[in-house]
Formats: sequence, C-alpha cells, structure tokens
Amino acid sequence: MGKQMKTAITPTREEDYPEWYQQVVKASDLAENSPVRGCMVIKPWGYAVWEKIVANLDRMFKETGVKNAYFPLFIPLRFLQKEAKHVEGFATECAVVTHHRLEKGPDGNLVPAGELTEPLIVRPTSETIIGDSFSRWVSSYRDLPILLNQWANVVRWEMRPRVFLRTAEFLWQEGHTVHATSEEAYERTEMMLNVYADFVEEFLAMPVLRGAKSPAERFPGAVDTLCIEAMMQDRKALQAGTSHFLGQNFAVASEIKFQSAEGKEEYAWTTSWGASTRLMGGLIMVHSDDDGLVLPPRIAPAQVVLMPIIKKEETRQAVMDYTNSLADELRALDFHGEKLSVEIDDKDKPGRAWDWIKKGVPIRVEIGPRDMEKNAVFMGRRDTPGHKKESMDRSDFVAKVVDMLDDMTQKLFQKALDHRTEYTEKVDGKDAFYKYFTPKNAEKPEMHGGFALSHWCGEMECEEKIKQDLAVTIRLIPFDAEEEAGECICCGKPSKKRVVFAKSY
Amino acid sequence: MGKQMKTAITPTREEDYPEWYQQVVKASDLAENSPVRGCMVIKPWGYAVWEKIVANLDRMFKETGVKNAYFPLFIPLRFLQKEAKHVEGFATECAVVTHHRLEKGPDGNLVPAGELTEPLIVRPTSETIIGDSFSRWVSSYRDLPILLNQWANVVRWEMRPRVFLRTAEFLWQEGHTVHATSEEAYERTEMMLNVYADFVEEFLAMPVLRGAKSPAERFPGAVDTLCIEAMMQDRKALQAGTSHFLGQNFAVASEIKFQSAEGKEEYAWTTSWGASTRLMGGLIMVHSDDDGLVLPPRIAPAQVVLMPIIKKEETRQAVMDYTNSLADELRALDFHGEKLSVEIDDKDKPGRAWDWIKKGVPIRVEIGPRDMEKNAVFMGRRDTPGHKKESMDRSDFVAKVVDMLDDMTQKLFQKALDHRTEYTEKVDGKDAFYKYFTPKNAEKPEMHGGFALSHWCGEMECEEKIKQDLAVTIRLIPFDAEEEAGECICCGKPSKKRVVFAKSY
Repeated sequence: MGKQMKTAITPTREEDYPEWYQQVVKASDLAENSPVRGCMVIKPWGYAVWEKIVANLDRMFKETGVKNAYFPLFIPLRFLQKEAKHVEGFATECAVVTHHRLEKGPDGNLVPAGELTEPLIVRPTSETIIGDSFSRWVSSYRDLPILLNQWANVVRWEMRPRVFLRTAEFLWQEGHTVHATSEEAYERTEMMLNVYADFVEEFLAMPVLRGAKSPAERFPGAVDTLCIEAMMQDRKALQAGTSHFLGQNFAVASEIKFQSAEGKEEYAWTTSWGASTRLMGGLIMVHSDDDGLVLPPRIAPAQVVLMPIIKKEETRQAVMDYTNSLADELRALDFHGEKLSVEIDDKDKPGRAWDWIKKGVPIRVEIGPRDMEKNAVFMGRRDTPGHKKESMDRSDFVAKVVDMLDDMTQKLFQKALDHRTEYTEKVDGKDAFYKYFTPKNAEKPEMHGGFALSHWCGEMECEEKIKQDLAVTIRLIPFDAEEEAGECICCGKPSKKRVVFAKSY
Repeated sequence: MGKQMKTAITPTREEDYPEWYQQVVKASDLAENSPVRGCMVIKPWGYAVWEKIVANLDRMFKETGVKNAYFPLFIPLRFLQKEAKHVEGFATECAVVTHHRLEKGPDGNLVPAGELTEPLIVRPTSETIIGDSFSRWVSSYRDLPILLNQWANVVRWEMRPRVFLRTAEFLWQEGHTVHATSEEAYERTEMMLNVYADFVEEFLAMPVLRGAKSPAERFPGAVDTLCIEAMMQDRKALQAGTSHFLGQNFAVASEIKFQSAEGKEEYAWTTSWGASTRLMGGLIMVHSDDDGLVLPPRIAPAQVVLMPIIKKEETRQAVMDYTNSLADELRALDFHGEKLSVEIDDKDKPGRAWDWIKKGVPIRVEIGPRDMEKNAVFMGRRDTPGHKKESMDRSDFVAKVVDMLDDMTQKLFQKALDHRTEYTEKVDGKDAFYKYFTPKNAEKPEMHGGFALSHWCGEMECEEKIKQDLAVTIRLIPFDAEEEAGECICCGKPSKKRVVFAKSY
C-alpha cells in the first residue's frame, strides 16, 4: 500500500460514504441537526447556496409565465379525508396539530390545551388546500390557465432522517397549474421538467436523465410523473425534481370545474411540480471530494475568496489596499448576468485556506507583500489536485477569472457525466442483473454496479420483486429510450424498451 | 347633501372603515381568507408586493453584515417551558403538534395517531430554538458578533383574525444577533430599527415615529423594545416594526456563554427584530382610497400598465407593435437601481382600466390608433383626482415617467405626514384626554382625536387604567421627546416628558 495522503474529511468516500457525507456537511458549515427530531438547521453558508438555487429557479419559472403566491401552512383534516377517497397510496406520516394553547398544569408545567374541533395537518404538499382556492377562482375557460408557484416549508414525518436528503421539515417550491385541456397540461408538465433539468445541469453542473416514472413510483394520484435523476459518486440515483401530470384526478377531488368555450361544464386538468433542499444533498454527493465541499461556481455564494497575508503590522495597510482594490476590480466583472461575488477573509489565522477549501469556494487567492511587489496574485482552484497554487499576473488573473470559473463548471459536469457513463451498463438476464446490484464487499454497499439499463415487462409484480430482493427500483423510463425487443430481467416476458434500474436516495 | 360620486369600493372609508379595508383587499386581489381559520391566502398580486418588501429589506439587512439562515418550524415543549420560567407574560396561544400520523379509524375516517412523547409547538417566534444553536456556536469572544436573520412563517392563534393585520399564520423575518457587550447589542437594536424606519418611509412612503415602548408594551423578556409607529387614515396607530434589546435574559435562558478576551466566562447580549406581512395591512390603510389600492411606486409589482385599445382587427398589429416598442423603451429605464417594471394588459374588455385602478398601479397608459397617429400616449396617474387622463407626447412621457413616479412617492408620503400632523395634538389634563379619545359618533369609532402627545408619570397602573377605560395605549416614547415638566394625564403626578397615546391595530 502506498502512503496515504492526509485528507480534510475523515472518513474518505472510499472508507465510508454515508459518514463522509455527514462530515462534509459539517466541515463545510452548511447545516446541522437540530434538537427537533428530523429537522435541520440550515447555517448561513448552506442557506446562501439555497438562496442562489431559489433566485435562479424563481427567475426561470417566471420566464414561463408562472407567478408566486402563498397558501396556508395548515390543511384541515377533512381535505385529506376527501383526497384519501380519490387517491390510492396517500401518505400518512405527517405532523398533526390538535390543540391551540399551552396552559400551566397542576405541577406548573405547560400542557396542551384548547383542543381543536377539527385537527389540522402541517402541509406535506399543498394540492388539496390550493385546489380549494382554484375551485373558487375558476369558473370559465377565460380564467385559464392558472400558473402558480409557492416557496414554502413542508413536513413529512421521516423515520430515518438524513440532513438535506430526508428531513421531516424541508424547504421547497411547489408549482400548481390549471388548464382547460389535457394537451396543454401535459405540455406544462414537460416544460417544467425541462426547467428543472436545465437548471440542474447549468447551475449545479449535475448531468441528469429525463424520463417518466413507472406506475409504482408515481406521485399518488398522478396520471404521469416525469422526473430527472442524477448519479451520485456512490453510483446511487438521486431524484432531483419531479413534474406531475395529474389529469383530472385532483380537479375531481377539489371540484375545479369550468365552463368551456362551447358552454359545457368540464373538470379542469392540473399539474404540480416540485424541487427541494434535497438538491443540496445531491450537489454535495455529486461533486465533493475527500477535502470537503466542491461548489459549482454559478451556485457558490462567493466565487472568489481573497486572503490577505499580514505578516508585519507595517505592511497591513498596503496589503489591505491591494486586496480591496483587487476585490473592487473583480466585483465589477459580469458573471452570467450578475456581478462576480468576492469574499475577503482578513482573519489571518492558521488553517484559513483549508476552511475555504472545505467550504468549496471555487477560487482562493492569497495576497502577501511578495505578490504585491510583482503585481501578482497567488491563486488556487478548488478542482486542482493537491490544491496547488500558482502565481499569476494580477491583470492576467482579472482577465481570465471568469473563463476559469466556466472551465471549472464544465469540468465538474464532464467528470460527473463520465462517472455516470462508466457506471451505466446494459444488463440482460436475471443472473447478471442480480450480480450487478450485489456489492462484492458487503461492508461497502455502494460498490454495486450503478445504473442498469434493462428490460422490464411493464408489470408491477416484477418491480416489486426487484425492490424486495435488491432494494433496486425503476428510476425512470427515459424519454429517449429506443424501441428494442428484449426480455424482462425479472420474469423473462417480452419487453419493448430498456428502463433505468438503480439503488437510490 | 351634494351628489355622491360613485366609488369603486363600497362602503367608503367614511361609511365603514373596517369594511372598506376588507373590500380594498378583495377588489385589489391581494389576498383572501382561507378555509383554515385565521389563515390567509396571499394571491399573486399581493405576493408580488410582499416579494418587493422582502427583496429590499433583505438587501438592507445584508448591507449591515447580516446573513440569512433557517431554523426548525417546530419548537420542543421543554424549550418553551424553560423560557416560561425566565419570561413573564409569555404568550400561550399557539399551534400544538401532538401526533405524527393519520390512520383510518373503524369508520374509515382518518384520525390522528402516533402520539409524540413530547409535543411540538409551531414557532410563534424563534428565540428559544435559535438560542439553542447559539449556545453551541458561541464559546469565545472571537465567535461574536453573530448576525443572523430568517425569513419564515410563524403561527400565533388569533381570536379575532383580520387579513394581513392579525392572522394565525403570517410571514415575517426575524433577526437574531449575539454580542459580547451590552453597548454593541444596544447599537445593533437601534441600527435595525433605523433600517425599518428608512425602508418604510422610502419604499412604503409611510411616515413613522421612532421610539421605545413603555414597559407594559415591551416584548416579553426584552429589556427594551424599540418600535416604529405609523398613523392610519382612521387615526389609529399601526406598529410597523420592532427591535428588541434582550439584555442577557435570553442568553441566560438559552445558556449562551462565551469566554471574554480577559478569560472570564460571561453571558452574551442578544437582540431580536422583526417585520411581517402586517406591513401590507399598513400599506393599504395609509394610502388607499375609495377607489381601491394605491401602491407607492417603489413597492408596486408594476409601475406602469400599458393597455392597447384594439377596436378593429385590422389595427391590432400596429397597436400591439406600438405598445411593445413603448414597453421595451420603458423597461430600459432605471428606477432606483432596478429596471422599470411594465405590464401589458391586452385583454380589451370593459372595466379593464378600473381593475388596474383598484389594484393600485401607479401609472396607466391607454394606446389607441389616435394616440399612435399623434405619436402620443393617453396616461393617467393613480393619484389624480377623478382618475383623469391626459395625452402626452410619447417621448415626453418616456423622459418624464421616472420623475412622475418619484413625485407620486413624495406626494403620498407628504399626504400621510400631513394627516398625522393634523390629527396629532398635545393633550393636557384628564378630561381633555378622555374627550380626545371619545368619538362624537358612537357608530364611527375611528372619529376619535388621533395621536395624543400627553404626559405620563411612568407608572404601569396609569397605563392600565387608560387602556381599560379607552382602549388607548402608549404607542411609544419618542426618541426626540423633549424634557418638559407636566402632569400625568391619569393620576396628575409629575412627568418629565410627553409620550404618544393612541388607539391601535
């Protein structure tokens, strides 16, 4: 065995991937667990990344004509009752509010009081409460389409919470639209999926597959669920956004009816689509390394951090002046329609550079008296092996920094794509399929094959068996899957196309 | 009686102020009540105004070094238990989560199941849960100050809800800071109050008084509560933002301790400050009139609406081209660091112009074939009596539109200031004071005097009596109150300064 390089994160991805993930979240100061089971605290650095995600997705939604609104946090029990009648597989792990007061009990301790006549559910998703408004807002085809989105917190009681990936409370956006025709609603479903895919690929540098879910994996009540799926470094899939074509199911449950141009009363066609703080988990798992977080430049709260080196008090002023003027120059640069974001860290303490490496800042710049003399900067890219730095002429650095950042984005994307390509295989036959998903080393469950492109007969029983046996599910039926005769890897019956099977988060 | 002008809003302010308010909210399409008691639906036009408030306040906070973060929606009961020990007057009307599942009961209906071992409270404010994080994050004076803010929803069970003004769930921001010294914490308390005051005056065109609350009106647990108060058109006060100096009270309750530069362990000094969707209620009540909402230009989702008039199909293309090119020209204009926001409403239907008047858009522009021929626009300002429109040369309009908008902001501010000045009086002696707050007509409770600048001895008993007798409270002790010998309007004891008494929302 060769000498091990010391890494900032212990354990490494190789040693223990799930624990590595937790340690990256901690070392990069993105978030932490809270004293409330399953709820996280998103720390300033993590929230700043989320703000970038929100700002850009929000702009992209609005460009398609969507407007934001806000609906109540609470859903009356009778609404879910109504939905439960119409929707098979309705989720029931949720937070239930039963009282509206705290009172001092006989022992002086606070106890719940003021029982509600009807319990309220903290929204796990808002189809029912938004549907109630829609039913009042829609009466004629002239009122359609309605294209709304809300940024909100939602709660789903999670038995095995994991920061960002699966938390009881999470932040998300949920889009809800109403249309006069099935065609228009389906078009919107596809349009929003493409917004997600474009955003995730361009901003998070995360390559995704686009496709439809199999019936077993659909959102309860949806006629069709479209999704994007990305491969993490442990070869598991992460669903990064879903867009649901709800047909008339929710319109029937919520009584969303309209008078058509021909004067007929019809149920409307609805869609819903969402992306959440889970994206943060995906971002971490796709790009980060054994030294911490790696942030794609367009989503980094700061693209560049400047670290003045102040060895002697007498040079402080000069070094700070040089740093500030460089910061001004950089902040004037356009970076994809915004100004470049530059942080100055003048806390000259040991480990400062490593802190920024762990936090994933794309470019670090050190500025000391020697750099000033040469009118230079000493810079390092987060994606350079060994975090080697190089001296660059100051004006050269300013001229090239945007290109360097775009080069990084491109390389991060390509690396993730290469990884996915390497661990995606056409797998035929039951034995090969079971072997593909069986890790050679039981202690390293991440060492299974990756994504399997395999034939499936279309039967839910086969899906279920694969899930029971291997904890593997159909992630999606790719839009671009070619027609090809084959045999279901589970039952051997004829199949016309390959679907993507994988383990997943 | 003279002939009554027909108004878009029924009743008028004069006829029934509270009902007028509800009707303006409805006519302007800002929000509506939801089926969940006390919770509102913020509709797209209302949410767009809120987004403007959020974006600008957020920028102003960040300019003072504040960063955003996110903390859990739920607070464990034991946290409030701990606070209740330290804090007198702790609020208890809140939503209590007691179960984490819904199950089908014997009759097939869903019932709460999975009782929690410890109830969770939906945050009414987050001092305790954020304090828990702070206690872990702070250990040395080097960790201070911490300057955080969160944008969130909060819930306080309201017995008499009223859209925007008093709702069970509302949206707000809550800032929380931790400091090493009392002086620094107090400075921050004042700084954030000034941010609120500047924002409200500049963006909402709402003049405010700045000052401190009397002890009875302080936030429970605060050493000092600073506030801004504005006068509504019914002469009542609305608190538009508060900033609390919490001393060491919450640091003691949450165990936020640090080692000082001298190596001593000390409790930290904290502040908290908040503003909410209540601002929307204030905005409506200060500026709106009997024809609906009046939006100050800097907070309007659109400053200008263009309404092409298409009488004959053969002129449609030409009119739309003219409209679109005018929109492009206007959207290129800088309006306080942003681009002017322009809406095109090409739904040529009866009542279109009135819809935009009711929605409060600052400037309406009609464009028909005759305007095009003259290379002109037919424009109307929301603050012009009778909504009269005038023809303007197109290039003249483009050259002057920003000045017109700023003129509107200035006039709205001045009008509100004049109103406050007119209904603010120095009131001396108990009889005069009681008379000042007794409406001449019992059916019009808004017809009391307004703000009374009166002497107060400083005793809580006198505050309490005035509140019981007149439903009047001390709104604030103005920062700029001059020393002046006088007698308490309640008990007659000596007083050194006048405070502001008023009825309030």
